[in-house]
Amino acid sequence: MKKSSYHMTTEQFRTEGKKVIDWIADYYENIDKYPVLSQAKPGEIKAALPENPPQTGESMEVMMCDLDEKIMPGITHWQSPNFYAFFPSNTSFPSILGDLISSGLGVQGMIWATSPAATELETRVLDWLADMMGMPEKFKSTSTGGGVLQDTASTSALTAMIAARERATNFQSNKTGIQQKLVAYISTQTHSSLEKAAKICGIGSENLRMIVVDEKFAMRTDLLKEQIQKDKAAGLTPFFICAALGTTSSNAVDPVRKIGEIARKENCWFHIDAAMSGTAMVCPEFRHFQDGVELADSYCFNPHKWMFTNFDCDVFWVGNREELINTFSILPEYLRNQATESGQVFDYRDWHVQLGRRFRSLKLWFVIRHYGVEGLQFHIRNHVKLAQNFTQWINESDDFELFVEPPFNLVCFRHKAGDDFNMKLMNAVNATGKAYFTHTKLNGQVVLRMSIGQTNTEENHVRDTWDLIREIAREIS
Amino acid sequence: MKKSSYHMTTEQFRTEGKKVIDWIADYYENIDKYPVLSQAKPGEIKAALPENPPQTGESMEVMMCDLDEKIMPGITHWQSPNFYAFFPSNTSFPSILGDLISSGLGVQGMIWATSPAATELETRVLDWLADMMGMPEKFKSTSTGGGVLQDTASTSALTAMIAARERATNFQSNKTGIQQKLVAYISTQTHSSLEKAAKICGIGSENLRMIVVDEKFAMRTDLLKEQIQKDKAAGLTPFFICAALGTTSSNAVDPVRKIGEIARKENCWFHIDAAMSGTAMVCPEFRHFQDGVELADSYCFNPHKWMFTNFDCDVFWVGNREELINTFSILPEYLRNQATESGQVFDYRDWHVQLGRRFRSLKLWFVIRHYGVEGLQFHIRNHVKLAQNFTQWINESDDFELFVEPPFNLVCFRHKAGDDFNMKLMNAVNATGKAYFTHTKLNGQVVLRMSIGQTNTEENHVRDTWDLIREIAREIS
Repeated sequence: MKKSSYHMTTEQFRTEGKKVIDWIADYYENIDKYPVLSQAKPGEIKAALPENPPQTGESMEVMMCDLDEKIMPGITHWQSPNFYAFFPSNTSFPSILGDLISSGLGVQGMIWATSPAATELETRVLDWLADMMGMPEKFKSTSTGGGVLQDTASTSALTAMIAARERATNFQSNKTGIQQKLVAYISTQTHSSLEKAAKICGIGSENLRMIVVDEKFAMRTDLLKEQIQKDKAAGLTPFFICAALGTTSSNAVDPVRKIGEIARKENCWFHIDAAMSGTAMVCPEFRHFQDGVELADSYCFNPHKWMFTNFDCDVFWVGNREELINTFSILPEYLRNQATESGQVFDYRDWHVQLGRRFRSLKLWFVIRHYGVEGLQFHIRNHVKLAQNFTQWINESDDFELFVEPPFNLVCFRHKAGDDFNMKLMNAVNATGKAYFTHTKLNGQVVLRMSIGQTNTEENHVRDTWDLIREIAREIS
Repeated sequence: MKKSSYHMTTEQFRTEGKKVIDWIADYYENIDKYPVLSQAKPGEIKAALPENPPQTGESMEVMMCDLDEKIMPGITHWQSPNFYAFFPSNTSFPSILGDLISSGLGVQGMIWATSPAATELETRVLDWLADMMGMPEKFKSTSTGGGVLQDTASTSALTAMIAARERATNFQSNKTGIQQKLVAYISTQTHSSLEKAAKICGIGSENLRMIVVDEKFAMRTDLLKEQIQKDKAAGLTPFFICAALGTTSSNAVDPVRKIGEIARKENCWFHIDAAMSGTAMVCPEFRHFQDGVELADSYCFNPHKWMFTNFDCDVFWVGNREELINTFSILPEYLRNQATESGQVFDYRDWHVQLGRRFRSLKLWFVIRHYGVEGLQFHIRNHVKLAQNFTQWINESDDFELFVEPPFNLVCFRHKAGDDFNMKLMNAVNATGKAYFTHTKLNGQVVLRMSIGQTNTEENHVRDTWDLIREIAREIS
């Protein structure tokens, strides 16, 4: 018999949806039972999945069973409280529910008219955040700037660099292509996304200067000044400087005010990449780290890293939205509408690379409202305190040494037995499945990174992991 | 009393999550009661939201109440069966559940090691889709190419253009910046994202040639050839051609084989943008529209438009993955790992602009498995049939005329009373809240677009909307 519809009915959705909610709750209750780092071998997961798609539909029961048996062994558990790798990409239950509503509504907020609430809630929430984090007034929609949600800090860096390129060329390179010799500045410790951005936007990685850092891995502004003068003397045009508020390797904080002053003097766009550590600005006691932030043209941080909001969610603020809109605006006939032409609304498609956009602000709104400013501060301070405890244990240990004083929640340390030993130690700890952390290189040496920011990480987790690291170090010594 | 945690417990999540599932089911059962196009005025939604964030946390009950009262009036209902605007951005219950699991797991699949299943399921599902849609073997991971999920077709177009730029410059422009005079080709009807891409990647919109179209709004290849010869004679380097399989204004199909042959001969990268209409390739009877697809270097289409998979989900295939990886690869120390160094795995961060990535393939896997090939074909064919019915009604009408024969599910038509009347008619229909459709301009004339692709659109919806359009046309005549 021919079916008249293959859709899942609302009744089935009620039943199956509730099972999925329970599946997720069960997952979090039992997350300790999974190895944090997936132990799957290359090709293993793919081989467990059929080579051909199903001709006829399958039941949710079969799909959920495959999820448990075929997919879960290939999951690295970013939401495990024992995940200390890279930077966190954490989530929380209010965020998951906000995102679920976004999926359910399925609105595509490319322009104001395609869902006014998607635009206006985003504007409101990013104004809230600007206040919550002590940001300059110009970053607010009520002033000359405003915020927009991007997918990642990589995209924000690219967006900033392109807007900078346009400002530096009187908005001509969008038309003629790049004709000037433009030069951008970062430090040797700045995130790789800045190099990727320089490539993508046609500037080229050879025109990205990587300024040497000081003993705390922060950009040396004396060398920045020197390099700018050298480039200008060679007939090049400096146009963009990025400061990191918390580098990826070691969480180093570049001197924001000094770099900002240089950027002002040299007519460079000043972008601040605070992808992970920006969240700490919710606590006033950390804001001294970004003294001078009012000199920035743009700023980004990721609630999807440390603010309990699930991926993807990057906040990007600018001080002058007109420059951003002049850079990215395109208005084909099929998107013309009365609201846009009235000039009374924001059309966020003109604030970034993509056209289409998901209703991302819902999840952030849910997070801020569930926790309140107070709850966010509480958990951020708790993570920083756990990092301080870990630092103290390192300092008290005979076998380990702290590599650099942590400003926030990332502890860089190493065993005194050398690079090979540290790599072996890390791989052995990760192979237990009880914890997962990663390494970097600083001054040519292997350094282990203990990044403490997962939503559910508490003191016992950090303490157990420290015991595990020491135990394994003794075993392999 | 000081709280020891502000997190929502798993028990609360079970309760609140199930309420949200019911809220979504209720929404779909009652979606007819909302005006399809939000009737909110600029600033109205924002004004209803408090100016300051909450200091202490709030309950889900209060938040859900605000969702109903303050957010819903600002929603344009993309999931209404009476949504005929732009192109669909549809979803389905299996997709919502797949996406919910992705939010719950919260994995960040930037590289293979950070969740092998996120990479390998994506590879498998995109190989499935290549087979389901009759794509050339080279687009499969088992051959020289492969697929990767991007957020939008805009990003895919940008990705293709950058890879093309690198191939044309022997992968030098990534390093030195753009030094050649590169020229790209699209038609006057190609989506605006291609112009945006030319700006972003430093080529410049003046170096993007918009080739005039024929009476069916498809690119004229005689003029394409002519323009290429002219540009070469002027010392410019043609490097990129994009064909549209279904333009945004009128769903016109560019001559794929002819353009592909020109691209081959002129050493240009050949990208096919099938954002909406690509989904039709699931049905073999439509594949003649992309005869010559094996000549393409890259191809994109959006399951988030017409394949019942919620935003964002764009499939991007390339025939030669090495070129893509050589263009986007960056490997800082903190992302080094054994699996990457073994060369046995894909690290998808090297296939696109962003670094971080959500586990997007889960929702697509759920959709394909729930519907099966058969179910997808059934609903696609149904939408096309509804468009054919609508076309017939237009043809039988005295007052309306068909503007161009629809190849798939978009009907372009107009009332015979002229441009102003058509705009007035469209705005009046949209103001009823009973249906929402949009316009474009073709040959300088206002044309109304009836885009039939929302998941739940059935014959009665299209019939009622046609009655409504005629009724309002009579009223305002």
